[in-house]
Amino acid sequence: MITRLDLFIHRMVSQRACLDHSIAQTSGMTQPVFELGLGNGRTYHHMKSHIVDRDVYVFERAVGAHPDSIPPEELTILGDVRETLPAATDRFPDGASLIHADLGGHNREKNDIFARFVSPLVEPLLAVGGLMVSSDRMYFENLVEQPLPQDAVEGRCFIYRREI
Amino acid sequence: MITRLDLFIHRMVSQRACLDHSIAQTSGMTQPVFELGLGNGRTYHHMKSHIVDRDVYVFERAVGAHPDSIPPEELTILGDVRETLPAATDRFPDGASLIHADLGGHNREKNDIFARFVSPLVEPLLAVGGLMVSSDRMYFENLVEQPLPQDAVEGRCFIYRREI
Ligand SMILES: C[S@@+](CC[C@H](N)C(=O)[O-])C[C@H]1O[C@@H](n2cnc3c(N)ncnc32)[C@H](O)[C@@H]1O
Ligand code: NI
Ligand code: NI
Repeated sequence: MITRLDLFIHRMVSQRACLDHSIAQTSGMTQPVFELGLGNGRTYHHMKSHIVDRDVYVFERAVGAHPDSIPPEELTILGDVRETLPAATDRFPDGASLIHADLGGHNREKNDIFARFVSPLVEPLLAVGGLMVSSDRMYFENLVEQPLPQDAVEGRCFIYRREI
Repeated sequence: MITRLDLFIHRMVSQRACLDHSIAQTSGMTQPVFELGLGNGRTYHHMKSHIVDRDVYVFERAVGAHPDSIPPEELTILGDVRETLPAATDRFPDGASLIHADLGGHNREKNDIFARFVSPLVEPLLAVGGLMVSSDRMYFENLVEQPLPQDAVEGRCFIYRREI
C-alpha cells in the first residue's frame, strides 16, 4: 500500500529530479528564473544553490519561509499570482528561462482548478527553449510536455517546454 | 552542496526506512506502538498502514493532522508528552513494542535540549526487545543504539533497542 509518507517522498524526490534536470537543460540561457510559491522555501533554497548564472525571482502571496530561504526584497514579487503574473509580462519582455510552480495545497480538485486558471497566465512568460516544472498538471496551448528524468515518479511532477 | 530540500528528503526517506525496518523487527510482539507527535500525520498514516497486529497510540498536544490521518479518540493521548509519558507508565505496565518520536521543530539546539529532557521519560516505556525510532539523537541509559537499515542516512534518524 502507498501511504501519505510514500506519496510525499515521491513528490519531493520528483521535484528535485525535475528541477536538477531543468536547471541543467536551461543553463546558458540568460533570462531569469521564476519560483511560483515560496512556502517553506525548500525548493527555492535548492534552486538558489544550483543556479549561479541567473536571478531567481519569487512570486508569493505572503512570505513565511524558513529564515535561510528568504529571497532578497528586489527579487520578491509580492501578491496573488493571478495579478502578478499578468503584470510580469511587461516587466520581463524576454520572459523566463525556467519557471517552477508549486502553488497547491492539500485539495487535489482545487489544485486542478487553479492549475487550469493559472496556465494561460504562465504560458506567455516562458522564453523559447525555456522549461516549466510543476507539481500539478498544467493546461497549456503551445508548451509541450516533456519526458521526466530518471528519478522522478510519473504523475508527481510535470515538465513543459516552449519549442517555438 | 547539500540543500534544505536534500536534507528534508534524507530525513523523510530515513524515517520511512527506520520505521519499515523496526516494524518488521518487532512484529510478533504484543505490546502497542506509540507515535509521539502526530504533526501532519504522514508517519502515523504510514505506521497505521503497515501495522495490523498492534494498536498505535498517538501522543499529541493538539491534533491538527490531515483528515486521512486522525487517530481514533480512544487511541489519542492528548497533552504535553512531559506529562503524558510519565502517566503512561501506569496505564501500560507492559510497555510498548515500538516507539517513534518526531517531536522536533526547526531549531536544532532546542530539539537537542528537548531530546535530553524527554529521553528518561521514554526509556521506561519500551518493552524488552522493543525498538525506539527517533529523528533526534536520544540520551538513554540502557537502550542500545542500533545500526541503521540500508536506505537510511546517518544522522537523520536513530534506532535504539532495549536488550534487557
Ligand atoms: C506548497 S507551498 C510551496 C512549497 C515550496 N515549494 C517548498 O519547497 O517549500 C505553496 C505556496 O504557494 C503560495 N500560493 C498559493 N497560491 C498563491 C497565489 N494565488 N498567489 C501567490 N502565492 C500563492 C502559498 O502562499 C504557499 O506559500
Ligand atoms: Ni510501504
Ligand atoms: Ni544537489
